[in-house]
Amino acid sequence: MQALKERVAAEGKNLGDGILKVDSLINHQVDPKLMDLCGLEFARRFALTNPTRILTAEISGIAPALMTARHLNLPVVYARKSRPVTMPDTVYLTIAPSHTKGNKVELIISPEYLKPGEKVLIIDDFLASGATILGLVRLTQAAGASIVGIGTLIEKTFEGGREALQYLKVPIEALVQITSMEDGKIIFAP
Amino acid sequence: MQALKERVAAEGKNLGDGILKVDSLINHQVDPKLMDLCGLEFARRFALTNPTRILTAEISGIAPALMTARHLNLPVVYARKSRPVTMPDTVYLTIAPSHTKGNKVELIISPEYLKPGEKVLIIDDFLASGATILGLVRLTQAAGASIVGIGTLIEKTFEGGREALQYLKVPIEALVQITSMEDGKIIFAP
Repeated sequence: MQALKERVAAEGKNLGDGILKVDSLINHQVDPKLMDLCGLEFARRFALTNPTRILTAEISGIAPALMTARHLNLPVVYARKSRPVTMPDTVYLTIAPSHTKGNKVELIISPEYLKPGEKVLIIDDFLASGATILGLVRLTQAAGASIVGIGTLIEKTFEGGREALQYLKVPIEALVQITSMEDGKIIFAP
Repeated sequence: MQALKERVAAEGKNLGDGILKVDSLINHQVDPKLMDLCGLEFARRFALTNPTRILTAEISGIAPALMTARHLNLPVVYARKSRPVTMPDTVYLTIAPSHTKGNKVELIISPEYLKPGEKVLIIDDFLASGATILGLVRLTQAAGASIVGIGTLIEKTFEGGREALQYLKVPIEALVQITSMEDGKIIFAP
């Protein structure tokens, strides 16, 4: 998607160790018009998969997931990383290693908002190793629901996430693909 | 705002100790159409304050802030509660007590996205004691920017937040006001 690619090219910073800083448009500041365009593009690409629900993980997945949900007119659920007092006693919980934080995080969903038989479209900001998205997949399966697609704003193709998700046999769409971050550069797929 | 009030009345649960569960529409699952209507309403109410930026706190403030930003065509910044590796070494940081978690949280903003002279509209999900919003106010002031308005989806008028913010002399708008949660009930302002 050209609009996002141009912004990542202009504002993204390679901080080394595979860390891409896009705080000016995704992870701290958000441009709502750009994010809305991303949501529209996800909606277009996944319309034929007939999802019944969008699933993401707090925090930075919320903006793209919400805008996608807006265009598909679906509810969005964001997995929590700590259990609020408002959640029921029994929840779906899984552990996912966090790439950028170097530790493990919990991903928690209440059974109230993810039911057996639902068709789930996962939307997140990054696809890197796929650890967070695989966590969302496990939660979906625990709920007896199925995955119909996976969308991500930015994919780092060199970290193996797509391969790790391939077994699901669902469409995986990245709006921007980065193929290398060696030598301080950011190389985009054509 | 009638649409939000009806949904809170239908789906909100009084869990006691002043805790209102609205996980089905704000804090875990989000209805994007309803949230977009809330954003439109905030945009209408604050248009004359001429903000240059929307500020909120992760996590549950992101959805209403993003939709408000969409309608005002402004960037939104969400204060982080932990410092990501992508942030610069020097940041604005304040401590705010968390009502629902019973502890203290950090609120952190990078100086990259909050500049002196900016006119900030704060949007958050809840106004209760005002602790989180007062934290956002301190960060704004630390950056040399000013507050032009404060908007919240739901205000619990009996927890004193509005009084705590009154000294700012800016408009404070709540889309829904709850005046009492005694005896397991949820009483709305007329």
